[in-house]
Amino acid sequence: MYKINTNYQKLPGSYLFSNIAKKVAAFQEANPDKEIIRLGIGDVTRPLTNSVIDALHKAVDEMGDADTFRGYAPDLGYDFLRDAICKWDYVRRGCDIAADEIFVSDGAKSDSGNIQELFATDNKIAVCDPVYPVYVDSNVMGGRCGNYDSTLEKWSDIIYMPTTAENGFVPEFPKETPDIIYLCFPNNPTGTTITKAQLQEWVDYANKNGCLIIYDAAYEAYISEEDVAHSIYECEGAKTCAIEIRSFSKNAGFTGVRLGFTVVPKELKCDGVSLHDMWARRHGTKFNGAPYIIQRAGEAVYSEAGQKEVQELVGYYMNNAKTIREGLKDAGLEVYGGVNAPYIWMKTPDKMTSWEFFDYLLENACVVGTPGSGFGPSGEHYFRLTAFGTLENSKKALERIKNL
Amino acid sequence: MYKINTNYQKLPGSYLFSNIAKKVAAFQEANPDKEIIRLGIGDVTRPLTNSVIDALHKAVDEMGDADTFRGYAPDLGYDFLRDAICKWDYVRRGCDIAADEIFVSDGAKSDSGNIQELFATDNKIAVCDPVYPVYVDSNVMGGRCGNYDSTLEKWSDIIYMPTTAENGFVPEFPKETPDIIYLCFPNNPTGTTITKAQLQEWVDYANKNGCLIIYDAAYEAYISEEDVAHSIYECEGAKTCAIEIRSFSKNAGFTGVRLGFTVVPKELKCDGVSLHDMWARRHGTKFNGAPYIIQRAGEAVYSEAGQKEVQELVGYYMNNAKTIREGLKDAGLEVYGGVNAPYIWMKTPDKMTSWEFFDYLLENACVVGTPGSGFGPSGEHYFRLTAFGTLENSKKALERIKNL
Repeated sequence: MYKINTNYQKLPGSYLFSNIAKKVAAFQEANPDKEIIRLGIGDVTRPLTNSVIDALHKAVDEMGDADTFRGYAPDLGYDFLRDAICKWDYVRRGCDIAADEIFVSDGAKSDSGNIQELFATDNKIAVCDPVYPVYVDSNVMGGRCGNYDSTLEKWSDIIYMPTTAENGFVPEFPKETPDIIYLCFPNNPTGTTITKAQLQEWVDYANKNGCLIIYDAAYEAYISEEDVAHSIYECEGAKTCAIEIRSFSKNAGFTGVRLGFTVVPKELKCDGVSLHDMWARRHGTKFNGAPYIIQRAGEAVYSEAGQKEVQELVGYYMNNAKTIREGLKDAGLEVYGGVNAPYIWMKTPDKMTSWEFFDYLLENACVVGTPGSGFGPSGEHYFRLTAFGTLENSKKALERIKNL
Repeated sequence: MYKINTNYQKLPGSYLFSNIAKKVAAFQEANPDKEIIRLGIGDVTRPLTNSVIDALHKAVDEMGDADTFRGYAPDLGYDFLRDAICKWDYVRRGCDIAADEIFVSDGAKSDSGNIQELFATDNKIAVCDPVYPVYVDSNVMGGRCGNYDSTLEKWSDIIYMPTTAENGFVPEFPKETPDIIYLCFPNNPTGTTITKAQLQEWVDYANKNGCLIIYDAAYEAYISEEDVAHSIYECEGAKTCAIEIRSFSKNAGFTGVRLGFTVVPKELKCDGVSLHDMWARRHGTKFNGAPYIIQRAGEAVYSEAGQKEVQELVGYYMNNAKTIREGLKDAGLEVYGGVNAPYIWMKTPDKMTSWEFFDYLLENACVVGTPGSGFGPSGEHYFRLTAFGTLENSKKALERIKNL
């Protein structure tokens, strides 16, 4: 008789955003006339930009012509895209990363979820708390997290690094040395970040202690402050201790287009074994490349016009972030984030739990946010709003909140 | 110090098709003037059809307009596509499969590679020999295969079911009962298949012995004979023992477009645990849906015009298959497959090994095929040619082979 991977059984409930979607659907069904404003999931709302649309149409036409048709893409990505990424995201910022260290994929979520496969089951992982659930859940599925304590809302074998208002949302080095450290800056969900100098301390810590850093930089396009690193490879020594995961979802609005990439430097070795080779092998075995037409869309993001459009797009959402941040402050709430990231992280009022505030906001303002506790125990009494809605809806949502 | 998944270290050499690509590139570099005909990898060459191109353009336009833009797709696929698949591929064939049992993905290769995650490490898997390498390699990475014996070219913990000319390419029930059985019909690489009655025997065997069948039906569109099942769910009882994986790559030429799906029936349970729930959880955690525009392209395949185009496409490649099959026969070679599949499986002449014949054919005819031994030890002395080239190239390749 075949047997299942029982680690799946350990996962409590279902994925955070699926839960929210169900609650919202139920509310809408019960209140069909109410207009719900969704500032919950980090999904963009602006259409794809002109350069991207043009590149997509052009690539589609190529696929319809025998002379220019493309079958299987190279497993690791087309050179035209890897070269563009290398030049713009790394060389331009002074990072010594080569095009063949960049692995193109169908998105940062897939890569964040799949990367843990490269590592032994008995690695101890450390995550910030609160945290993007994919890091934890994928490690639970991989058998790396022990058991879940539903009272503490923690896994027995995960090292949690609280990031709260008390420590300025800067994780501290944990007492117990972890093997693998997940860091995400600018941070999802808190919308806060750390300075380049602080990130350098983490790189030094990792190199000194034999840790691997999995660095999620999906929100780097939203950085507005000078002393914040766009890539971990801006830090000295990062190539021997860090993998970086990046996305086209948030800068170019590709959430429904699906494109991302992961950088695995060739110098990154574990006891002499190249992680670059391992990730290449995984791509070759379990992935078949991102679609040609979508890689062309990605390339267009790096054109001169494309970069200008991305800046406008980011500017649009950051204006929303400002609207939300200042609106919440005006309403007397305690607010963080939204300066280098499209997320606003607020303290719930009147000591409400995160889910109590979720229900309160949904029922009384028809605004959907994300309960902070869904991201980890230290997220309790916090609440996330995203700047990815329209400006009109962001303003309307804030009016409703102010009037509560 | 962090530790790697040492199972990766057990994998001998690199992925078969990467090896071939390297050999061909080296040959081309040494012989820049020679025209190489590639009948190796199963990659299509005909452009996307009109219905698909139109659907892509239309969907691209939608993504460029704020009113019709789509962000994150539903994790499991858009209803418009799941409904179309359900109606055409299942209900029309009398299979009792519901739309919400269909999981849309970025391709059959990803699904074939990822599905093993749902199962415990100590399951014993059985594969046909020769076999599509992804089933084996993904299980090696998952720690399920023991050690590789490079003399036998076998993994200690895999049950191999030889399919050769001697048994008419029909696998026999193994002496040791496996937990998980991978079946692929019409078969890659042999191009042969089994009858619906024979498949029913496997379903009965699985239900009787508590086995799970992972059924890869990526080539079903090429079935030309009446007594061959297009889906395993045409067999009675399959819903309690089988997962089916399907692709748009070979019927609609989507190798570079990336779209596939997996069917996990709700009745399929392991000790009461729903595999449907587990796969949904995996999708929700490690995948973010196939791109909207590509799901619309998939939908177009099921339109009336789309179905007609698919038939023409399949007809084109099957004409190539006939050309190759009959050409090889005329050249005095022993040939199998190519009737219900786009693959032709031939015995190497003069007791050459598969790789000897690969080199011989590349050097003397500039034709690339796939060495049978690359698919498993029972593939030794066999060689695979695909019908996915152009008719012109298929004819030219056969002329060259006849003249050897």
